[in-house]
Amino acid sequence: MTAVNQPASTQLTADEIFRAHEGGKLGIDVTASLADSRALSIAYTPGVAQVSRAIAEDSALAVKYTWAHRLVAVVSDGTAVLGLGDIGPRASLPVMEGKAALFKRFGGLDAIPIVLDTTDVDEIVETLVRLRPSFGAVNLEDVAAPRCFELEARLIDALDCPVMHDDQHGTAIVVLAALRGACMALDRELSDQRVVISGAGAAGVACARILLAAGVGDVTVLDSRGIIHPGRDNLNPVKAEIAEVTNLTGLRGGLPEAMRGADVFVGLSASTIPEELVAGMAPKSIVFALSNPDPEIHPEIAARHAAVVATGRSDYPNQINNVLAFPGIFRGALDANALKITDRMKIAAAEAIAAVASEDLSTDRIVPSALDPRVGPEVAAAVARAAREDGVA
Amino acid sequence: MTAVNQPASTQLTADEIFRAHEGGKLGIDVTASLADSRALSIAYTPGVAQVSRAIAEDSALAVKYTWAHRLVAVVSDGTAVLGLGDIGPRASLPVMEGKAALFKRFGGLDAIPIVLDTTDVDEIVETLVRLRPSFGAVNLEDVAAPRCFELEARLIDALDCPVMHDDQHGTAIVVLAALRGACMALDRELSDQRVVISGAGAAGVACARILLAAGVGDVTVLDSRGIIHPGRDNLNPVKAEIAEVTNLTGLRGGLPEAMRGADVFVGLSASTIPEELVAGMAPKSIVFALSNPDPEIHPEIAARHAAVVATGRSDYPNQINNVLAFPGIFRGALDANALKITDRMKIAAAEAIAAVASEDLSTDRIVPSALDPRVGPEVAAAVARAAREDGVA
Repeated sequence: MTAVNQPASTQLTADEIFRAHEGGKLGIDVTASLADSRALSIAYTPGVAQVSRAIAEDSALAVKYTWAHRLVAVVSDGTAVLGLGDIGPRASLPVMEGKAALFKRFGGLDAIPIVLDTTDVDEIVETLVRLRPSFGAVNLEDVAAPRCFELEARLIDALDCPVMHDDQHGTAIVVLAALRGACMALDRELSDQRVVISGAGAAGVACARILLAAGVGDVTVLDSRGIIHPGRDNLNPVKAEIAEVTNLTGLRGGLPEAMRGADVFVGLSASTIPEELVAGMAPKSIVFALSNPDPEIHPEIAARHAAVVATGRSDYPNQINNVLAFPGIFRGALDANALKITDRMKIAAAEAIAAVASEDLSTDRIVPSALDPRVGPEVAAAVARAAREDGVA
Repeated sequence: MTAVNQPASTQLTADEIFRAHEGGKLGIDVTASLADSRALSIAYTPGVAQVSRAIAEDSALAVKYTWAHRLVAVVSDGTAVLGLGDIGPRASLPVMEGKAALFKRFGGLDAIPIVLDTTDVDEIVETLVRLRPSFGAVNLEDVAAPRCFELEARLIDALDCPVMHDDQHGTAIVVLAALRGACMALDRELSDQRVVISGAGAAGVACARILLAAGVGDVTVLDSRGIIHPGRDNLNPVKAEIAEVTNLTGLRGGLPEAMRGADVFVGLSASTIPEELVAGMAPKSIVFALSNPDPEIHPEIAARHAAVVATGRSDYPNQINNVLAFPGIFRGALDANALKITDRMKIAAAEAIAAVASEDLSTDRIVPSALDPRVGPEVAAAVARAAREDGVA
């Protein structure tokens, strides 16, 4: 058996990784002709003056005659980068370039990394307000919790364009899609599931919220101090809100208390869980061990007890990968000229992903492959439809 | 004779112009492979974590493994856009996209437009300081005078990377190159020329400065109120400085007084000059009528009296076009890892442009064509060399 921390398909050498990143992963592509003097006169002076004058007279024309309207700013302050933590904006840039590349590859959208040398919420909001005419949407990325909650909320208020913190909602949407897939594969109802979420960071909180919004009956969330409940001291505002709407049966304690008899486990912390806790879940349990690169429990060990196992890794079945969600979500929001990304749009994205999975469903295929070319367009179409239904487009 | 305001080669229809700008003129090009699951693991997670961790440990590696180091931010607040004036950031965007496209076409550099919804110098500086890890150089564009002088100086102080306001220095560099070319064609010395500059905005002030730095003997500058001299009231700080270093013979008055007997006229205002003023210049005079799209005097009328005539237009000989300068300047500065763009680097750029022109010189070819592929690389090499000589690289 291949060890989880060194699976065959990701035995990448440092040399090939660093070579692939040399010079960065993005470039600018000029889509207008600059071939000769006449083309130059059209694309630049004097021709461009007519286009600028037209936009000055009717700012709505900027949508048609600039790239900004469909440009996603991938914004980070570098404070919670992958599993590396607060490594700063410069070191986060390779990740943001990768994210921008994924937007192009899977959503057909142009995206540019904006990495910021400030971690102050006021300053980040102020900066993006000033930059607003330069882009059409904001994908927040790798901003530490709990600051990311306030920052996202403030940006949604301040900017008249789609804003989404992908570490929260991208993950949550794919988890919901996967849970729908798992329930379909096992012929169970979403509303009947008792779900335990380990981790109350960006992804954990967003998962709890979307699962509840999608109709899951009972969700219990744990942070590093154990089960979140209203009786706990010193809960931050986000966790206090989670305490109010989760944990219907009033559980106290830690993972053993939470997982006993649970139907679904969603791991979104860097912790590990012992095999006996999975063994103690309800029959035909569902285990999403999403910590990356090392899942909370080895998927083959979890599979001894659980009916469905998913991880964040590409080298095991059922990869829960944000790339199934964010390119289509932003594409759909921008296609619809949406002013924001609503809960309904997020749930529609999850349903679209699950619908693609349903065409070829099994307990080993509860979500489509991250490379499935059907997903992006289906998600975009569903999200655009939901935006119109929600009246934000 | 074709009218100056409707020359044959630029009889562009509105329809073809607007069509060419639909969707904007830029896109993102992904330079890393995302073809399959393995490539994704290299370019994004988990592979990218190694690259980010390496940069976190040694920030100098960001130069090698991100696109930012060679990325030019084309920054504008939209306050002095072409001849259109203060049309705002959204309406300026087609121009900034065009500029970014020219960086790619003529300098091989990636560039992104950053248009700002603020005209406050403090706020613009603050914003770019926060964005600093996202780019490698700043091309300021279309910022109104006199604010542009303070803004450029403040940004040069605040940012450890090349910063240049192209409306000032790009124009000034090409004017210097063209004046060198004209003097070579006429077998005259730069130091012997008495030069009159009409216009004390961004380009006029920078022209005066670079011509003096390059050794031109006498420069006189006029603004809308006439010749600038130390006896005038209410000069702003920039004009007061100009008054100190120009106008050696203490001229007073307006264009008639300034141009009488002058060797060189450089028009950088939107004014017009009557034929008799050109007739009254020194024999074999040099006239650069650079106002765009309408030169200060029709080039064919000027040519009745002047030995060399240049304009900003592509449909007459001797086009003074910034595109001869800025792509190579930024390319050279970035190739040399320069921390700033010095006067010596600017003068080296002008000399490189003049050197290319000298290979095929005549009074109708004092500068190379804007499309000449030799110019960008020659300018870049000269600028990089000058950066090393100046110790800023």
